[in-house]
Amino acid sequence: MGGDFAPDAIIEGAVDTLEHLSADETIVLLGDEASIIRKLNEMNVSRSLFMIFPTTQVIEMGDHPAKAFSQKKDASIAVGYGMLKKGVLDGFCSAGNTGAMLVGASYTVNVIPGVFRPALATILPCIDGRDSVILDVGLNPDCKPDVLLQYGILGRLYAKFVLGIENPTIGLLNIGKEETKGTPAVKTAFELMKEQPGLNFAGNIEGHSLFHENITDVIVCDGFVGNVVLKEAEAIYSICKKIGISHPFIDRMNFENIGGTPIVGINANVVIGHGISKRKAVMNMILQTRAVVQANLAQRIIEAI
Amino acid sequence: MGGDFAPDAIIEGAVDTLEHLSADETIVLLGDEASIIRKLNEMNVSRSLFMIFPTTQVIEMGDHPAKAFSQKKDASIAVGYGMLKKGVLDGFCSAGNTGAMLVGASYTVNVIPGVFRPALATILPCIDGRDSVILDVGLNPDCKPDVLLQYGILGRLYAKFVLGIENPTIGLLNIGKEETKGTPAVKTAFELMKEQPGLNFAGNIEGHSLFHENITDVIVCDGFVGNVVLKEAEAIYSICKKIGISHPFIDRMNFENIGGTPIVGINANVVIGHGISKRKAVMNMILQTRAVVQANLAQRIIEAI
Repeated sequence: MGGDFAPDAIIEGAVDTLEHLSADETIVLLGDEASIIRKLNEMNVSRSLFMIFPTTQVIEMGDHPAKAFSQKKDASIAVGYGMLKKGVLDGFCSAGNTGAMLVGASYTVNVIPGVFRPALATILPCIDGRDSVILDVGLNPDCKPDVLLQYGILGRLYAKFVLGIENPTIGLLNIGKEETKGTPAVKTAFELMKEQPGLNFAGNIEGHSLFHENITDVIVCDGFVGNVVLKEAEAIYSICKKIGISHPFIDRMNFENIGGTPIVGINANVVIGHGISKRKAVMNMILQTRAVVQANLAQRIIEAI
Repeated sequence: MGGDFAPDAIIEGAVDTLEHLSADETIVLLGDEASIIRKLNEMNVSRSLFMIFPTTQVIEMGDHPAKAFSQKKDASIAVGYGMLKKGVLDGFCSAGNTGAMLVGASYTVNVIPGVFRPALATILPCIDGRDSVILDVGLNPDCKPDVLLQYGILGRLYAKFVLGIENPTIGLLNIGKEETKGTPAVKTAFELMKEQPGLNFAGNIEGHSLFHENITDVIVCDGFVGNVVLKEAEAIYSICKKIGISHPFIDRMNFENIGGTPIVGINANVVIGHGISKRKAVMNMILQTRAVVQANLAQRIIEAI
């Protein structure tokens, strides 16, 4: 288990998740066995409620991702990906070293054939109660037009199968409504998306539509723009908390209530948590992983691409 | 005069500005003379408080900018730029067709020699009471590294002379703190900014630092990212208003309180207002123009570049 507050916060979050699970669902805890058992004992929780898989090494937050993933074969991230590949796990999540989680994805479970670039997809709240899927939020800062088009397709599958939206609308985040706006890549992506059958493309959307009723179910952008959009929303949440503004809508911008960001476009259901995740965020990261597993997202993408 | 609510909102805003001006400052109103006089009479305001310069044509919001600017020589934007070039005006602002305002800038007053690309600069509020300058917010969606470096220099001049910050800190908006993060252009810009003497470069800044104490005085980004950041802040303001959240900090995100966005890097002091500007926004657009004139910003840039 990884993250700034591991192992305690991870175990606390896992314990809180238990009441949400059905009888045939099991949480596998990967990490230092003695620490896990000590913490469960402290919490008066029976170790039999979990499957514990001991690991002996730790990929630190500052470790070089590829090097650490290759050299620390008995760290939870490496072991988790191994179990995922063998089909022992249906889904895998970690709040540990993000780079190592991404390296693990491409070294073990691999990118789905036909997917140009996997993406990190997350949700942004909308004032009308909906959630919008936004991707990419950080994997690919520079995107070619065909990658953006495919993000529309991947986002559509996410919105349909994870969020349950029948025919999601797809928007291309841009600096104006007109199709002549934006970078060359975005302009070409607009053309491609317009011509893509069955995409339900709603055209360009602008930043001031974010969170509003007219925002599309899926927001497509490169990983640079998406990362800034997501972190600006996080900034707003933390500012509101600081100045004493409390509102259910603002709470929906709290990453702790979302928990984690799935990697879409790989052959398995994997969710990356925030390094600073505490108890509540960890619970939601695990529940987010479960949602992706229940939606069978990876398989849906394999079938659609 | 232009904008969705011209001429009435423009005249109302101009009237409200009067009390903020000193005796040697004059507002020149460019537009249909009869409408201006009718509105001033309605408001019981003496026409002698303004200089009225009649124009007979109108560049519509939907007009093609370059074509309209060339063909409608007696529209307020064309006449205003002409007066600016002749030195009759010290500054010029309009809430009219943004494209025509930009075309006018490059056709008449011109880009300052040595400036690669002019930028639109605006301010974002910070929780500690400061304002940060962010640029570009929409002129150049795709920026080369040397353009980003120069935005740092232009932003520094803006922060120093318009906002009065002695030695402003400059940040490069990116998706991580590490200098290996981001697009190739941003990575190279980081190198250039790090080596630029006297820039006071504070390194990469991330989206979650926006509005926070640790945000730099200047935020450098390409016009795509800056446009999305600015409009996301506008989205937050309008959502807060919708759900009944009222707070002085949130009010600072209201574009009406900022008024307009200077074009930096041209041989004159020009401010572009929002097309939807009403009375209050117009007043602040004029006051923003006056601030840029008082700071002598165009001249400061000419001397520094």
